[in-house]
Amino acid sequence: MTDEISRRSFLGGAARGAVVGSGGMVLAAQMSAPAVAKGNPELSWQLVSSFPGSLEIIQDVARVFVKFVAEASDNRFNIKIVPKTSLGKKLDAATAVTKGKVEIAHTSSGFYWTKDPTFALGGGLPFGLNSRQMNAWVLEGGGAELMDSFYAKHNIYAIPAGSTGCQMGGWWRDEIKTLKQLNGKKLLSSGYATKIMKELGLDPQVTESADVVKAFKSGRLDAIEWVGPYDDEKLELYKATKNYYYPGWWAPGPMLHMFINRAKWDTLPKFYQTVLQGAGQAANAVMLARYDAKNPAALKRMLRKGVQLRAFPKEIMMAAFDAAEKSYAQTASTNAGFKKVFDNWHQFRADQYLWSQVAELGMDAFQSEVINR
Amino acid sequence: MTDEISRRSFLGGAARGAVVGSGGMVLAAQMSAPAVAKGNPELSWQLVSSFPGSLEIIQDVARVFVKFVAEASDNRFNIKIVPKTSLGKKLDAATAVTKGKVEIAHTSSGFYWTKDPTFALGGGLPFGLNSRQMNAWVLEGGGAELMDSFYAKHNIYAIPAGSTGCQMGGWWRDEIKTLKQLNGKKLLSSGYATKIMKELGLDPQVTESADVVKAFKSGRLDAIEWVGPYDDEKLELYKATKNYYYPGWWAPGPMLHMFINRAKWDTLPKFYQTVLQGAGQAANAVMLARYDAKNPAALKRMLRKGVQLRAFPKEIMMAAFDAAEKSYAQTASTNAGFKKVFDNWHQFRADQYLWSQVAELGMDAFQSEVINR
Repeated sequence: MTDEISRRSFLGGAARGAVVGSGGMVLAAQMSAPAVAKGNPELSWQLVSSFPGSLEIIQDVARVFVKFVAEASDNRFNIKIVPKTSLGKKLDAATAVTKGKVEIAHTSSGFYWTKDPTFALGGGLPFGLNSRQMNAWVLEGGGAELMDSFYAKHNIYAIPAGSTGCQMGGWWRDEIKTLKQLNGKKLLSSGYATKIMKELGLDPQVTESADVVKAFKSGRLDAIEWVGPYDDEKLELYKATKNYYYPGWWAPGPMLHMFINRAKWDTLPKFYQTVLQGAGQAANAVMLARYDAKNPAALKRMLRKGVQLRAFPKEIMMAAFDAAEKSYAQTASTNAGFKKVFDNWHQFRADQYLWSQVAELGMDAFQSEVINR
Repeated sequence: MTDEISRRSFLGGAARGAVVGSGGMVLAAQMSAPAVAKGNPELSWQLVSSFPGSLEIIQDVARVFVKFVAEASDNRFNIKIVPKTSLGKKLDAATAVTKGKVEIAHTSSGFYWTKDPTFALGGGLPFGLNSRQMNAWVLEGGGAELMDSFYAKHNIYAIPAGSTGCQMGGWWRDEIKTLKQLNGKKLLSSGYATKIMKELGLDPQVTESADVVKAFKSGRLDAIEWVGPYDDEKLELYKATKNYYYPGWWAPGPMLHMFINRAKWDTLPKFYQTVLQGAGQAANAVMLARYDAKNPAALKRMLRKGVQLRAFPKEIMMAAFDAAEKSYAQTASTNAGFKKVFDNWHQFRADQYLWSQVAELGMDAFQSEVINR
């Protein structure tokens, strides 16, 4: 037993030191972990979610994150989820983190694109990477490092924390057959995409609080893009129109993040940083998996109610793609920070599609054709 | 400072207790974590990888896993990677885990399909789920729970730990235009897929140790399927043939695992179990991301050397799909354990493709067409 202590504690390195009881000797079996131990400090943090309660999969993902941290730290690192309303009306979640009002925000980087369009690159651009490619870019393509330099300026450390997968193109009152038809149509949307939508003649409406379903039904909105089958079903827009469009070219693989106050992050011992990273990996995987697992049944239910799946016409897809490319080039020409990240991202996207169209797309296309034939 | 100790340590709960130094009082700043603390036992485990050193991304993923565990446990839980040769020639990695010779094996469940075909469901079946759908099934579709009951019989607890993404269809000496041409062709392959390949008239060759490249060049093999561009490039088979086929219908989304000795797993405190789960999430994400990030450049280099990408003819894909479905039905009719998992998986796959062909495939197909136009 003495040998045990020698090996583990004394030879374990001066950095961790040794604890010797009043008797000058302690036995391993009698020891228990002191809560004030240098190795495992007790921490209480706060997390705010940017998302409405109705998006309950996303809400749950914040709980997955918090639960992981609690469990992996033996309940020493506790993160409390506080309501967004506790921030007051003037403070957005990212700013609350920057200022240290809360330690963490579960949010979309894309929400903050008007502060700096570089934020939009973190959340995923229109006609951007799909969810899997986004993970590849962030983890192994230089994306995390490039975005980290940007987030640092805002006192933020960002950990990926979830994706919906490619979103749907929303509910449209009229069947859309030509680009010209988009002219003046009021589409509820958000993010950098609204810049591109305007180029197509659309009149994008950005609102958080209004009863958007009522606005659609009354005719004040012509279209609403929300998320995908599982979340969209809850809006019951199929009662007002059957035209359900795809794909949501503005969100092919959106990525959510945990925005963490960077000063606080820097004070964490390495092992708590790793625990937070692991919690992020779990949250990131679980969110996409849950949407993937729940979307099919919702889609089937809506199809049974007469919903028509309609693809955006090629003319519109091409015009939107070209408008997006033009907009990105323009933004890059006036924002060096955006350009630095964008150039890497743009080449990465080209390479990803060069490869993914071969085995992956070849297989998916075949499976789509035969499995439900 | 005394208050600090009171709050954290004494009020923190009797369960964790308090450490009081010989002076009767200690200060937080002077405390350091005792390595023998009950809360964080020091553990030394061994991990063996089933994979050859040439598959260095997969080898690295085991290191990602081990590093995560070390970091998240403040270097108290150490896992040593030991060479596969240390098991001797008669012991496969899964059996070594079952018997407790090592605590963990980084392996493919599919390797063990001859012991029980249910193992193949864990690693991914031919014409099965893609990598993302596989994650969805395991995490949120009931897959983990169903497979867990099976693995328990082998004293294994399995944690997902990596995917290559959809693999390539390999290198073929002859251009393959008809199903009939497959007759008698010797294809290096492995797993449950070889059962299906035989139905197509192929003569699949399963070997671990021979110099397969030499065998191909000498004419003793007609085709070799390996992984994808990054790993395949290293074999330099493009020097012997330019016919590089896709997709690898036998591995649309293979999943690797950490097989953990279940008795040992059960003795772990909850927080180390969570740390291992987090390490698995990290390994699972990093492996796919790294393949995705590295495959495009390898593909480009090989295309510059004259490699021809060729799609398997529809006739072959259909015959293989039908043979796979028939084989699964047959296996299910004689193996109740397989049937239990398979029935759930089969419905899940149908639902996944019902949904993923809409927004996800629609978007990927468009992007593939325009981005590198």
